[in-house]
Amino acid sequence: MNIKEIQKRLSEFADARDWDQFHSPKNLSMALSAEAGELLEIFQWLTEKESLGIVSSENTLKAAKEEIADIAIFLLRLADKLGVDVEQAILEKIDINEEKYPIEKCKGKNTKYSDL
Amino acid sequence: MNIKEIQKRLSEFADARDWDQFHSPKNLSMALSAEAGELLEIFQWLTEKESLGIVSSENTLKAAKEEIADIAIFLLRLADKLGVDVEQAILEKIDINEEKYPIEKCKGKNTKYSDL
Amino acid sequence: MNIKEIQKRLSEFADARDWDQFHSPKNLSMALSAEAGELLEIFQWLTEKESLGIVSSENTLKAAKEEIADIAIFLLRLADKLGVDVEQAILEKIDINEEKYPIEKCKGKNTKYSDL
Amino acid sequence: MNIKEIQKRLSEFADARDWDQFHSPKNLSMALSAEAGELLEIFQWLTEKESLGIVSSENTLKAAKEEIADIAIFLLRLADKLGVDVEQAILEKIDINEEKYPIEKCKGKNTKYSDL
Repeated sequence: MNIKEIQKRLSEFADARDWDQFHSPKNLSMALSAEAGELLEIFQWLTEKESLGIVSSENTLKAAKEEIADIAIFLLRLADKLGVDVEQAILEKIDINEEKYPIEKCKGKNTKYSDL
Repeated sequence: MNIKEIQKRLSEFADARDWDQFHSPKNLSMALSAEAGELLEIFQWLTEKESLGIVSSENTLKAAKEEIADIAIFLLRLADKLGVDVEQAILEKIDINEEKYPIEKCKGKNTKYSDL
Repeated sequence: MNIKEIQKRLSEFADARDWDQFHSPKNLSMALSAEAGELLEIFQWLTEKESLGIVSSENTLKAAKEEIADIAIFLLRLADKLGVDVEQAILEKIDINEEKYPIEKCKGKNTKYSDL
Repeated sequence: MNIKEIQKRLSEFADARDWDQFHSPKNLSMALSAEAGELLEIFQWLTEKESLGIVSSENTLKAAKEEIADIAIFLLRLADKLGVDVEQAILEKIDINEEKYPIEKCKGKNTKYSDL
């Protein structure tokens, strides 16, 4: 199933429940951000090493997987509402990032492009 | 380009800059949430109607498209790090939502499943 | 009880549980943002008018009050860790905002200062 | 200047700009969360130790201080709109947390109360 097919299924899900009225871009951005907050909650007291270690903790990994799905669902729904082609947007942004972060300038550095 | 190919390209981008050291799931969840905050900023003072109206405002739509891309990029990178199959996670979550939100119970209602 | 006294009580709460080790500014910023996400969840499907209307819904108002408290707690704790005087920071920021947003330029407009 | 006086000043700031129309609880929760995202951005690629080390980096500390102020401003404004007494809310929440996290059960553990 590709991105457009998933978006179609999400749209049908919303239509069947008469939820389209709630799915303004504004509201979807809030729902997406709320789910991103739930993802933070999983990792907030863990060290970075422990945050990678959750791959061997069945329950925590399952929780993270669900949050990833929730975020993806609201992101695809929002993109659909705004007529944004997600794949194209990603590829264009990678190109922008290649320019903003030239390898020789930022290798091994965690510095924002505006400070490079 | 499918999801796995995009993830491969993101992984190569990080490797070329020796950034893998910064891409712990903890850090990626923060970066994702920070980008979700930038999306909120676009919509925070708009009405719901205006938030849909940005589709005819070239600059604002472009800004929203970039934020959608940033969120997608960190989400795909995080999923890659955790070994989560994003497409499978989404489809499983839609199935869960079908059960949590039966049509007859929640049609036209903006109520959380725990309050249904 | 003033801000410094509350910070002292929060510090004692953490010390008694040996939690100071978890309260790095990084982790506290995540916890704060996760709580901000729970606040979003309360309002995400409500209209703006309904979001004000929760003042007459005992349960929802109580939920919002708890989230406000959670955010305040992590904010005060973070400020304490960084040695930031919250009251002074607020007053300085109001002064900055007075300059950034002159009344004659932005009256009735929801425009960001960089677009004024 | 105490909390109520700060809230009065924020209210006058908004009134002078005819911004009260934009300050619904829904919108304020978004603005607060967007500012929390800017705080995350400061810390996202830092280690926990580095995140505490910013106290000796004038520029980064100043940036963090401004974000703390922004979050506090939107939090106080939201509480004002909802008629929530922030100090009382904090003290009540500390009491709740004392019960949820008994010292003997959670000393040195970063476990959520629901998992204790």
